[in-house]
Amino acid sequence: MKKHNYSAGPCILPQEVFEKSAQAILDFNNSGLSILEISHRSKDFVAVMDEARALVLELLNLEGKGYEVLFLGGGASLEFLMVPYNLMKVNGKAAYLDTGTWASGAIKEAKHFGETVVVASSKPENYNHIPKGYTIPSDADYFHCTSNNTIFGTQMKSFPETNIPLVCDMSSDIFSRVLDFSKFDLIYAGAQKNMGPAGATLVVVKTEILGKTGRTIPSMLDYQQHVSKESMYNTPPVFPVYASLLTLQWLKKLGGIAAIEKINDAKANLLYSEIDRNPLFKGTVAKEDRSNMNVTFLLNDEAHQEKFDSMWKAAGISGLAGHRSVGGYRASMYNALPLESVQVLVDVMQELEKNS
Amino acid sequence: MKKHNYSAGPCILPQEVFEKSAQAILDFNNSGLSILEISHRSKDFVAVMDEARALVLELLNLEGKGYEVLFLGGGASLEFLMVPYNLMKVNGKAAYLDTGTWASGAIKEAKHFGETVVVASSKPENYNHIPKGYTIPSDADYFHCTSNNTIFGTQMKSFPETNIPLVCDMSSDIFSRVLDFSKFDLIYAGAQKNMGPAGATLVVVKTEILGKTGRTIPSMLDYQQHVSKESMYNTPPVFPVYASLLTLQWLKKLGGIAAIEKINDAKANLLYSEIDRNPLFKGTVAKEDRSNMNVTFLLNDEAHQEKFDSMWKAAGISGLAGHRSVGGYRASMYNALPLESVQVLVDVMQELEKNS
Repeated sequence: MKKHNYSAGPCILPQEVFEKSAQAILDFNNSGLSILEISHRSKDFVAVMDEARALVLELLNLEGKGYEVLFLGGGASLEFLMVPYNLMKVNGKAAYLDTGTWASGAIKEAKHFGETVVVASSKPENYNHIPKGYTIPSDADYFHCTSNNTIFGTQMKSFPETNIPLVCDMSSDIFSRVLDFSKFDLIYAGAQKNMGPAGATLVVVKTEILGKTGRTIPSMLDYQQHVSKESMYNTPPVFPVYASLLTLQWLKKLGGIAAIEKINDAKANLLYSEIDRNPLFKGTVAKEDRSNMNVTFLLNDEAHQEKFDSMWKAAGISGLAGHRSVGGYRASMYNALPLESVQVLVDVMQELEKNS
Repeated sequence: MKKHNYSAGPCILPQEVFEKSAQAILDFNNSGLSILEISHRSKDFVAVMDEARALVLELLNLEGKGYEVLFLGGGASLEFLMVPYNLMKVNGKAAYLDTGTWASGAIKEAKHFGETVVVASSKPENYNHIPKGYTIPSDADYFHCTSNNTIFGTQMKSFPETNIPLVCDMSSDIFSRVLDFSKFDLIYAGAQKNMGPAGATLVVVKTEILGKTGRTIPSMLDYQQHVSKESMYNTPPVFPVYASLLTLQWLKKLGGIAAIEKINDAKANLLYSEIDRNPLFKGTVAKEDRSNMNVTFLLNDEAHQEKFDSMWKAAGISGLAGHRSVGGYRASMYNALPLESVQVLVDVMQELEKNS
C-alpha cells in the first residue's frame, strides 16, 4: 500500500517522477544506456540541464530579468557559507533575520566572513513566530532571511522592502506559492522538498550582485565560475538534477505555481481548521505566521498519544512525528502531497475525538 | 540493445545496480515508499549509510586502523579546497605532484590557502608520463597526488615513501587494484567511476591528521564536523549513496578488489596488446605508466578515422572519443565494463586492419 507520506524532507514527490526516473535508470531516452552511466557532457544530459534551468526561470516568472540558475551539489548548508563568501565585502557586514534552526545555521557560517548583524530573533520564544518591525541596516552588503521554517512550522507571509540585496533560503517552500520573485537577488533551496530528491541545490541569482567583494574565492565556491560554465563547472549530480526536471515538468503541466498554491491553501485550510476546531489539539505557532508547508501541532492531553499514534499509523500515514526541538506532531504538506492524504489525517483526528 | 559503454565518467555500473536502484525508486525495502521520498534520518537510510561506510573500510582493508569514511556532496572538485582548508597550517605549505588536468586543478585551489610547492610536473610533455625521482619537502603539511589521470591515460604504479601525510585523489581508479591503502592518510574520490553515479564523493581519512591547522573552518568544509555526525551533518545525497552501496555490494560478492584487479588486468592486457600489435594504432603515453582504467590511443593514419568511427559505432560501442586535449581515442574500462566489451573493440580494430 502506498503511504501518506508527511516526511519533512526528503519528502513525497509526484508518482510520475518515481515512475519516469526508475524507467530512465533502466533505459534513458531509448539510448540503450542508463541515466546513471551517461556522460554529463552528453547531448542528452546537457538538454536535461538546459531545460531544468529554463523551467525554473519560467515557473518563477524571472525570464529576461538578469537571473541565472544553478544546480549545485553539497546541499543548502553549503550555501550558508557560499552566500557570505560571494556577497560580503572584505571588511563589510551582512544582516540576518533569525527565525529558526536553519536561519541560525546560516548566521553561524556568515560570522566566518565578517560582521554579522542579527536584526531580530524569535529564539527566546522557541521560534514560535516571525519577528516583525525590525530595521535593516542600509549599509549592510545584503539581508538574509529564511522563508519557511521546517522545524518550527512558521512561514514569512511578507518580505521587507530594502535597498540592499535580498537573499532568501527558500529550501522548504520554493515553488509552493506565488511571490514576486524579482524582489529577491539570490534565492537558494535544497532540492529535497518541492523540487526533487536530495543531492541537488538550486541557486537563482541576479548576476549583477556578484563579483563585488574584493575577495578571492575558491572555484567551487564561486557563483561566477558556476554561472560561466552554465552549471557544469564540475560533474553535476546527474540523477538528482534529472529527477528535479521531472518534478518541474509535473508542476508546469499542473498549471505552475498559481495552481499548486490553490491546492496548498486547500490542504492548509483543511488541517488548520481541524486543529482549531478539535478540542483535543492545538497549534504551536502564532496564527498569522503559520506555515502552509509544515503544520506543527500538539495534543492537549498527552494521555491520548499512544492511541493517536497507533491510529494514524494504521491509516497508512508516515512521518508525522514532530522534530525533537518542538515535540508533538508535524504534518509536512509539500507540493506532491495530495489533498486526499490530508483528509485521511483529519478523519483520524475526528475519530480520535469521537472515541475519547 | 545494451551499449558497450566506454564513457570516461559518469560511466558504466553493474547491471544489477541499475535494476535494484530502479526498483528502490518504485518501492524501497517493501516500505510502500520510494528511496527518493524517505527521510535521511529514517532507520532504513541510516542502515544504508552505515553499511556503505563499513563496506568501504572492509574493501580497502582499513578496518580498525583509525580511518573514518564520509559520503559528501559537491564532487571531488570540492575536495580540492577542503584538503588545504583542513590540512594546510596557517603559514604552512603543501606539496603537490602535477600529473594532469585534475592534479593541476587541485594545485590551483591549494594556492588560495598558502604556499603550494609543485614537486614535479609532466605538463611540458602534455602529461604523457608520471614524473619520477622528485623530492618531497619534509616540512610540508602534506603531499598530494592523483593516482590515475582520466584524461591522459596515465596511472601511478607506485607511491612515494614520505613522513608527511599522504593525500590521494583516487577518483578514477579507486576499488580497481590492490594497494596498501594504509599508506594513505586521506583518500578522496568522486563516486562516478568505480563507486556509483554522480552526486556523491567518498572521503576516507585517518582522523589523527585533522584539527591541526590553527584555522577556523566553515562547518560544511570541516571534515571533523562531518566525522562527528557520521556523514550526516546535513542531508546527504541519498540516492547516489544508495546506488554506491549497491555497487560496493556487487564488488564484495565478486570477491573484492583482488578479484576485480584480475579482471581489470585482463581487460588492459587485451587492449594494450592489440594497440602494440596492430600497425594502424599507437598508444599515447609511456608504457610503464599506462592506466588500466583509461586507455588512450591514436590512429597512425588519420585517413582511417571515418571508417573506424563508423565501425565501432556499428558494433554498439559508445564513449570512445578522446578528450579534446589529447585527441584520438580513449577507452575507459572501469570495474563494471565486462571483458566481452573489450573483445568487441579489439575485434573491430582487427577488422579495420584487415580491410585497410
